[in-house]
Amino acid sequence: MDKYIFELKMKVRYYECDMQGIVNNANYQHYLEHTRHEFITKIGINFAELHKQGIDPVVARISITYKAPLHDGEEFVCKLYIEKEGVKYNFYQDIFRLTDGKVSAKSKVEIVCLTNGRLGESELFNKAFAPYLNK
Amino acid sequence: MDKYIFELKMKVRYYECDMQGIVNNANYQHYLEHTRHEFITKIGINFAELHKQGIDPVVARISITYKAPLHDGEEFVCKLYIEKEGVKYNFYQDIFRLTDGKVSAKSKVEIVCLTNGRLGESELFNKAFAPYLNK
Amino acid sequence: MDKYIFELKMKVRYYECDMQGIVNNANYQHYLEHTRHEFITKIGINFAELHKQGIDPVVARISITYKAPLHDGEEFVCKLYIEKEGVKYNFYQDIFRLTDGKVSAKSKVEIVCLTNGRLGESELFNKAFAPYLNK
Amino acid sequence: MDKYIFELKMKVRYYECDMQGIVNNANYQHYLEHTRHEFITKIGINFAELHKQGIDPVVARISITYKAPLHDGEEFVCKLYIEKEGVKYNFYQDIFRLTDGKVSAKSKVEIVCLTNGRLGESELFNKAFAPYLNK
Repeated sequence: MDKYIFELKMKVRYYECDMQGIVNNANYQHYLEHTRHEFITKIGINFAELHKQGIDPVVARISITYKAPLHDGEEFVCKLYIEKEGVKYNFYQDIFRLTDGKVSAKSKVEIVCLTNGRLGESELFNKAFAPYLNK
Repeated sequence: MDKYIFELKMKVRYYECDMQGIVNNANYQHYLEHTRHEFITKIGINFAELHKQGIDPVVARISITYKAPLHDGEEFVCKLYIEKEGVKYNFYQDIFRLTDGKVSAKSKVEIVCLTNGRLGESELFNKAFAPYLNK
Repeated sequence: MDKYIFELKMKVRYYECDMQGIVNNANYQHYLEHTRHEFITKIGINFAELHKQGIDPVVARISITYKAPLHDGEEFVCKLYIEKEGVKYNFYQDIFRLTDGKVSAKSKVEIVCLTNGRLGESELFNKAFAPYLNK
Repeated sequence: MDKYIFELKMKVRYYECDMQGIVNNANYQHYLEHTRHEFITKIGINFAELHKQGIDPVVARISITYKAPLHDGEEFVCKLYIEKEGVKYNFYQDIFRLTDGKVSAKSKVEIVCLTNGRLGESELFNKAFAPYLNK
């Protein structure tokens, strides 16, 4: 059974590859961020709105395991599921190559919410994420 | 006689190079922007402050001629001089490789000032740039 | 009548926006490059293959006029047409916001072909581009 | 006593900041990569040379803990020390803000060496890193 609750298909762009002919490591973090944002937008949260209200979700910690490289023009899918742990939301985000189905990278992204700069629970996020939490 | 009024030395970073083994074209625009910002900061203008006051300098037009590529780890210098033309400030910004002194790229960046979203003269910029204008 | 021969729809990613809340100027060049590459791939040209044969298309000159900014999450389309001028291929590439149809940026990208580092006509490109040239 | 064996001072560039007005998370990975490369170059290793010989050091895993954000124009220093663990080289890389000395980010970057695509010990790296290993 599949634990993932959201996925986004993308395609490697030439400028994302470095001299080794593969996607530069930092760009995986861009893919992961973009996927999270698309998910968060889909469930009705508007970042710019939040920021005006003094609410800023931020990455507290990220770990990425690189398994198999992505190449120029290659299509891939980034899948995610979420768990809550104390005040943190842990996003588990995995990237799969569409060419052969292989895992390209596995990651855990720990998000916390700052309200006017102070760490704490966010009613808004708790409500929005509730239907999507992995149990 | 040298027309340049400001210069910034930089060094190519690995991730700025693409599969051809040279700096990706878009990154030259980053180098040019960073050099302008360092110049503008040096003459006492604070971007974040301006933005709060509703004043935003923006690029209206850019043209870059690529002459000789920059390579990983290569040192270069970005030099600039400014001319005023109507409401525009034209930044002429040239990049030279330090390894052989060759011109790597020549550019003209046309900056205009938006005050609360409206194009017009900015007293603040006019005063700040006056001592540096090329005549 | 429409002169464009290829178009690619994209969506602004959060990390492409800067502190002014709009897409950073340099990222337009990424959008333009990605669109050209998708076009070139579509007509059967493989960059990595070419590079191995010593053939490298490079940007000799680019000019971009910025008309209206792109915002986080905004969808846009990048359209292009091509003209040949001497040894150069001129790519005219315009970006339109899908939210209101407004032109966001207009550009001209001059591409030349290096064969083992020497500038010249490329039979391969001439043949591949022939059906697509604007007359 | 200080365990760090190499450090590199840098300054935040405007385009590295996102709409929250702070450096985008992915750019820390660029800072870390650039610092490692400067260190590796300093001890006499040439990446392009290695790549031609079929030797590619790659990141197997990275974890970054974000402590305090970096802002536009802010100066910081990236320090590192290395430990060996099996075939891996673990780079411990920490970023400190120069404005207040605060830790901005702490990271562990696990590097492995591929020789013609196969994971294993690299005599060359073992010899080059030996004088710098933390014991």
